[in-house]
Amino acid sequence: MNFLEPSTVLDLQNIRDELVKMEDTIIFDFIERSHFARCSGVYQANNAEVDIPNFDGSFLDWSLMQIEIVHSQLRRFESPDQTPFFPNHILKPILPSINYPKVLASYDAEINYNTKIKNLYIDHIVPMIAKRSGEQKEQMGSVTMIDIETLQNLSRRIHFGKFVAEAKYQSNKELYKKLILEKDVNGIMENITNSQVEEKILERLRVKAQVYGVDPTNKEGERKITPEYLVRIYRDFVIPMTKEVEVEYLLRRLEDEK
Amino acid sequence: MNFLEPSTVLDLQNIRDELVKMEDTIIFDFIERSHFARCSGVYQANNAEVDIPNFDGSFLDWSLMQIEIVHSQLRRFESPDQTPFFPNHILKPILPSINYPKVLASYDAEINYNTKIKNLYIDHIVPMIAKRSGEQKEQMGSVTMIDIETLQNLSRRIHFGKFVAEAKYQSNKELYKKLILEKDVNGIMENITNSQVEEKILERLRVKAQVYGVDPTNKEGERKITPEYLVRIYRDFVIPMTKEVEVEYLLRRLEDEK
Repeated sequence: MNFLEPSTVLDLQNIRDELVKMEDTIIFDFIERSHFARCSGVYQANNAEVDIPNFDGSFLDWSLMQIEIVHSQLRRFESPDQTPFFPNHILKPILPSINYPKVLASYDAEINYNTKIKNLYIDHIVPMIAKRSGEQKEQMGSVTMIDIETLQNLSRRIHFGKFVAEAKYQSNKELYKKLILEKDVNGIMENITNSQVEEKILERLRVKAQVYGVDPTNKEGERKITPEYLVRIYRDFVIPMTKEVEVEYLLRRLEDEK
Repeated sequence: MNFLEPSTVLDLQNIRDELVKMEDTIIFDFIERSHFARCSGVYQANNAEVDIPNFDGSFLDWSLMQIEIVHSQLRRFESPDQTPFFPNHILKPILPSINYPKVLASYDAEINYNTKIKNLYIDHIVPMIAKRSGEQKEQMGSVTMIDIETLQNLSRRIHFGKFVAEAKYQSNKELYKKLILEKDVNGIMENITNSQVEEKILERLRVKAQVYGVDPTNKEGERKITPEYLVRIYRDFVIPMTKEVEVEYLLRRLEDEK
């Protein structure tokens, strides 16, 4: 079964199953990134060591933009669960368009947290998962490729808040309409928060970090990701930002009810 | 520690450690691919549904070429452990060149098994890991992106035979020179084969498929990769093709001894 099946895409259980699958992908990305040093040169705008003509950003920015240009032609950003970092640079797909029914509100593409996600990743997540500080200049390309993967997967996870929000809105329109009309941000936040579900996510992440973080045939070997860091990344960044997306999405939801 | 450290890159233990790390990467790729159907349209040359102007190959070929063009600018193919699928289309890096000492023989780039690896992947590996047959046309882009990752990682694994071969050659030049002069392919194959090491690899893969293939917090859940298939892929394809690379590399090794 595929998450984007239109008939079940707003089924909350289906959304949660997909979020569970994404945990594995993100953990695998963190493990790949953990093999390299921090490499801050990758993230530095106008780094003199990188000669990019007519470009103002970092090496990561340039590379991510190139990859998005390719992926856009593979139809990546027609999918409602994908959000580009460089929406003004992507191209038209070479594949025929998908006739996918509109399941999210008309303004969904305007909710784009990618710049925030990128800054968060660079400033807080990389220092936790990259074991060593320092540059490893000859690894800049490899680091950038893994960073792109990881950012795309974090972006998908966090913007999934839109599906969660739409499902919750559909399941209790009366309540949310009232909260939205009153611009009651706290009330919305309270209603979208399910502490039990969040605690379960963190508990599952602890187990997954234990299991995936070490070679199962050599348990005395190097630990690639610690449960503490993984839980911290989700508790302090991924979960709160997903909820921010949900609140922003819901606050505008009545625009589509005319 | 990074594999490509010039002083240890031909240390056989170091090479084996890197091969172990790659197993995880390849298993994670297989797991990602397992979520999708077979999608043979991705692999079909001149598929009428894909409108690629002036291009004769499959959708996968076109996409892989675009990605390689981006990656080449990130210096991917300057690294001796990377082998392009489209060597005639890649571009110059925008990063300064790495001053990496030549550790492999001068002809190493001429040993390129990528077409063979791609065919093998499409014909034998995808049918084993993609759970369902069928097309899932709306997923062609996602499938292609995962295929590219997987192919690049399989290619790195198999072409690692060059490092293995060079290390073995260095450790017993007398023996290999004699075998090479006699064009004794069987003798070379016998000397590079370490059945004990191969059995250990397969044993480790069985355990990894058990552990990584199922959600550790829901062991009754769906199994994403079976030990049987993973072992078969390595035993029948990955290991023999790595050895083919080793033999081809060694047979030409005296070209560099003049």
